[in-house]
Amino acid sequence: MLHHLDVRIDEVAPGRVVLSLPFRKEVAQQNGFFHGGAIGFLVDDATAAAAATVVRDGETVLTAEYKINFVAPGVGERLVCRAETIKAGRTLIPVEARVYAVKDGVETLCAVALASMAVRAFDRLKGGQA
Amino acid sequence: MLHHLDVRIDEVAPGRVVLSLPFRKEVAQQNGFFHGGAIGFLVDDATAAAAATVVRDGETVLTAEYKINFVAPGVGERLVCRAETIKAGRTLIPVEARVYAVKDGVETLCAVALASMAVRAFDRLKGGQA
Amino acid sequence: MLHHLDVRIDEVAPGRVVLSLPFRKEVAQQNGFFHGGAIGFLVDDATAAAAATVVRDGETVLTAEYKINFVAPGVGERLVCRAETIKAGRTLIPVEARVYAVKDGVETLCAVALASMAVRAFDRLKGGQA
Amino acid sequence: MLHHLDVRIDEVAPGRVVLSLPFRKEVAQQNGFFHGGAIGFLVDDATAAAAATVVRDGETVLTAEYKINFVAPGVGERLVCRAETIKAGRTLIPVEARVYAVKDGVETLCAVALASMAVRAFDRLKGGQA
Repeated sequence: MLHHLDVRIDEVAPGRVVLSLPFRKEVAQQNGFFHGGAIGFLVDDATAAAAATVVRDGETVLTAEYKINFVAPGVGERLVCRAETIKAGRTLIPVEARVYAVKDGVETLCAVALASMAVRAFDRLKGGQA
Repeated sequence: MLHHLDVRIDEVAPGRVVLSLPFRKEVAQQNGFFHGGAIGFLVDDATAAAAATVVRDGETVLTAEYKINFVAPGVGERLVCRAETIKAGRTLIPVEARVYAVKDGVETLCAVALASMAVRAFDRLKGGQA
Repeated sequence: MLHHLDVRIDEVAPGRVVLSLPFRKEVAQQNGFFHGGAIGFLVDDATAAAAATVVRDGETVLTAEYKINFVAPGVGERLVCRAETIKAGRTLIPVEARVYAVKDGVETLCAVALASMAVRAFDRLKGGQA
Repeated sequence: MLHHLDVRIDEVAPGRVVLSLPFRKEVAQQNGFFHGGAIGFLVDDATAAAAATVVRDGETVLTAEYKINFVAPGVGERLVCRAETIKAGRTLIPVEARVYAVKDGVETLCAVALASMAVRAFDRLKGGQA
């Protein structure tokens, strides 16, 4: 789906990931805004990626839960999501994210999110979630 | 995006909407599970649609916020999301939803969500969100 | 604080706990309604208690996170919170809860919550949260 | 309850409120930590107060919903909650907050929250919530 939606990785640093998503009709609502689902998708990916930068070798993360507040419609040529870990917990990593719509180069905040990523050993992953 | 992802409307009743999403590679992760973003997308759509069944003429709804807990990986031939309004508030409609993965006809709960839909008059919509 | 606020345990069963809180001026707002903080407090306690009924010997739970939607003011002689586990996960237990205000014996839904409880071994607890 | 728990107002500015709560046995768990309910209570009050600084004359706010992630136990002589509005919406005001435990003068982040405050005219308040 990442590939399919053409998500771009703008930045990766310890505890921080920035992803962006260019506007295309596949991620639009009828009115030409970005679909809320596209914003949620970007948040999910960016928060998981940010958490993945702080786990140890042999570990990965699963999205346990997230919450998003939508504060403005997503209007513009692309979305940018900046996600940062709040704490590198051993079993749970809280992450916050902000999503901006970029229109003519100007950013407008359109969503704020707070997520929990569950840390898993690779070999426990087959057993499923949580 | 609804059309693009092939979401189906299984049921619409006052305060209740059921949507489903067949498995396709566009909504899959590398491991063949449904992508969390697809689950979030379905929740967003189903909760908004459920809220839209209880507003008055001339009103519509916008997603103010939602929270999702993922409880099992989404494995199967389709996802089903059942959304029900908790209360038909005049300005905010809380909605809850459950998402099931259907594999060989058997449903497994994979996510639970709690959302708030903001009620808007059609003519105020141009002014933006919240 | 449980003792201090006079919380009562109305029911305990596997995966389910019901707590109630009688009205007292200590848990009231200026207008005589239950304070939102009292509702949050009751949700936190009831969801943790429900999760604690499904962990194994030697394990306990910590509140990782919760979300509450307030749907009506808490007016009446007591609050009742019914919490049920959604899944008995090995490391995370999602729990949902509803809070009702009871006035003259009639229940009105005043809040809905969705929480995640982290499962911890007793001997890891000293290391702190998550 | 504010008075009862001895909450202090440390700072009020447009879109920003800082509250603190000294440690007392009434807000403690058995282990001497601040009770999660005390943290939730402080978040609820601080986020509502922050939103109240940005509404117009004749308007007030009600807590529509909030989410809290607990990231460390609340250990220390007091809690400090800093709440800031994310956007001064006309009908909904998203607010974020961080709660720190202060021990020997050193702050440790113990919770992060994201809330939605509903804006209400004073004269509509009697009609109830949302």
